[in-house]
Amino acid sequence: MGKWFEGTGLEEDVVVSTRIRIARNLKNYRFPQRMSIDESEKLTQEVLNAMKKLPRDVNYKFIRINSLSSTDRVVMIEEHFISPGLIKKPDHSSFLLREDERVTIMINEEDHLRIQVLLPNLNFEAGWKLSSEIDDFLESHLSYAFDEDFGYLTACPTNVGTGLRASAMVHIPALAMTGHIDDFIKGLTKIGLTARGLYGEGTKAIGDLYQISNQMTLGEREEEIINKLKNVIYQIINNERDVRNNLLGKRKNEIEDKIFRSLGLLKYSRRMSSTEAMKHLSNIRLGRAMGLIKDIDFNDIIKLMIQVQPANIQRTANRQLSQEERDAIRAKIIRDNIN
Amino acid sequence: MGKWFEGTGLEEDVVVSTRIRIARNLKNYRFPQRMSIDESEKLTQEVLNAMKKLPRDVNYKFIRINSLSSTDRVVMIEEHFISPGLIKKPDHSSFLLREDERVTIMINEEDHLRIQVLLPNLNFEAGWKLSSEIDDFLESHLSYAFDEDFGYLTACPTNVGTGLRASAMVHIPALAMTGHIDDFIKGLTKIGLTARGLYGEGTKAIGDLYQISNQMTLGEREEEIINKLKNVIYQIINNERDVRNNLLGKRKNEIEDKIFRSLGLLKYSRRMSSTEAMKHLSNIRLGRAMGLIKDIDFNDIIKLMIQVQPANIQRTANRQLSQEERDAIRAKIIRDNIN
Repeated sequence: MGKWFEGTGLEEDVVVSTRIRIARNLKNYRFPQRMSIDESEKLTQEVLNAMKKLPRDVNYKFIRINSLSSTDRVVMIEEHFISPGLIKKPDHSSFLLREDERVTIMINEEDHLRIQVLLPNLNFEAGWKLSSEIDDFLESHLSYAFDEDFGYLTACPTNVGTGLRASAMVHIPALAMTGHIDDFIKGLTKIGLTARGLYGEGTKAIGDLYQISNQMTLGEREEEIINKLKNVIYQIINNERDVRNNLLGKRKNEIEDKIFRSLGLLKYSRRMSSTEAMKHLSNIRLGRAMGLIKDIDFNDIIKLMIQVQPANIQRTANRQLSQEERDAIRAKIIRDNIN
Repeated sequence: MGKWFEGTGLEEDVVVSTRIRIARNLKNYRFPQRMSIDESEKLTQEVLNAMKKLPRDVNYKFIRINSLSSTDRVVMIEEHFISPGLIKKPDHSSFLLREDERVTIMINEEDHLRIQVLLPNLNFEAGWKLSSEIDDFLESHLSYAFDEDFGYLTACPTNVGTGLRASAMVHIPALAMTGHIDDFIKGLTKIGLTARGLYGEGTKAIGDLYQISNQMTLGEREEEIINKLKNVIYQIINNERDVRNNLLGKRKNEIEDKIFRSLGLLKYSRRMSSTEAMKHLSNIRLGRAMGLIKDIDFNDIIKLMIQVQPANIQRTANRQLSQEERDAIRAKIIRDNIN
């Protein structure tokens, strides 16, 4: 787990990860929402057959949702391998996870296929290249539903056209601390972008992490969509860095105290909720960016943020844990990982 | 500073210090409340002359209140060398502090003389012996105001008779945590004892420290007063230890978390108020008593509790400090003293 996070990319002090997601559907099948189990199974087999034509050195693991325990289903979401939507109809849905954990092909989520590429830090070029290659490979072995006027057809009209959603997860604690966040989110909406929480649409922004993505999928070329998003991400990076410098200049004592208190609590607490853990981990990530805390990698803090999520904690035990037990295990994991 | 605290005594996990205070007045002088400056100076010289007759190897420092800066006056109170009452009329009052800081003779507080013996941990026997010797010495060279019926006469009727106030400072965080404190204080009042905060009458109990002392000074012999108090102190010691064991048994996770969070905050904070510092220092003293924290002496925690008081912090600087500056210095002193 956390393998996709190995190595570091650009702008790691602000950008946590880059994600490219492409929605595709096959001709001659109803959308997943209306499919029978037989039909969804037939489609799944068709996709698996196509995947057999991949070069031998590319390995994917095939996982059916109904083969996973309810804890492991949520773990897969917490790890960002799959979307929350994929586990809604467990007997219909499955996914293919590439060995390096950077690529997931979800089968029968909202659309028949959702190709996801996930890379650490800022890396739109590599993400777009990789997802296009996978898309091209699948298109050459499957019959995609495509319309000359609209482009790729999708279950929900918001995805029609390119079927592309590009996003970057940004860590913006300084913007959050100074209350710039609300204006910033309003501004994004005006230019066709959107900001979501850690686990996508409708989830709250915890740990000062925001997923910035395009709203529009129709009427623009893929490269245009990605370029526009990338430019905005660089604006966010610069804004966040400016505010950090400002805080270090004007509110140094307050900021240092906040960051080191979080470090002290992470190193010594014996029980901690995931909400509290996310708050302190966000603070020490800011401390790392400000040069106040050393000896810890940006990406290791993010890995820890994933490790302390409830299902990740639950899976360390053989029986259902109480909240108190989870809080104790979480605190221990954090102590073992923060020096 | 903190010299009186060297060495350890009995029951150090609960009893912080033992204090014996004897109030005495001289014949032929009005009580300090009504004295002129000349009269108070004459009395002061009479006491100093008596003190000259002490053996050569016993050394006292003589300090006039009006020779101390306003910060240093409060420092003397924070160190428990003098009472808050002594600095109310600075031109009348002074004190003699024995080299080992265990004995103070206050001149012109509420009474002409207040002999105070302060010892670490539980030690009524040594305290009573030492204070009696000093009292006997002074009585042999000065004319005490004494009445056959009432005993020693004092400015306030609550001190008439023996003029004795014996007290023990107890650290009872477990009783405080479980809410047993209020009943406990009510119980004390019924048997003629009283519980006060860290700096005597009318001060709040901070850091879970309570000063338990006799209310009655009339109608009982000194040894009876002290014995009764000592018995109650042992009851408190046993109660506090029982509750600590109970907490360790039934609420171990909660208690451990509380104690280690305090340790983490003490070790990492960059700003801390004295109220917050007292709370965390109390928690780690409890942690030491429970065996959860090692490598720190009970009495060193108490020394630190004195060092973080506002005037103690202020005296480290040459100019008036802002609260924010004091909070930063306090946090640094704590970090430097807690490993």
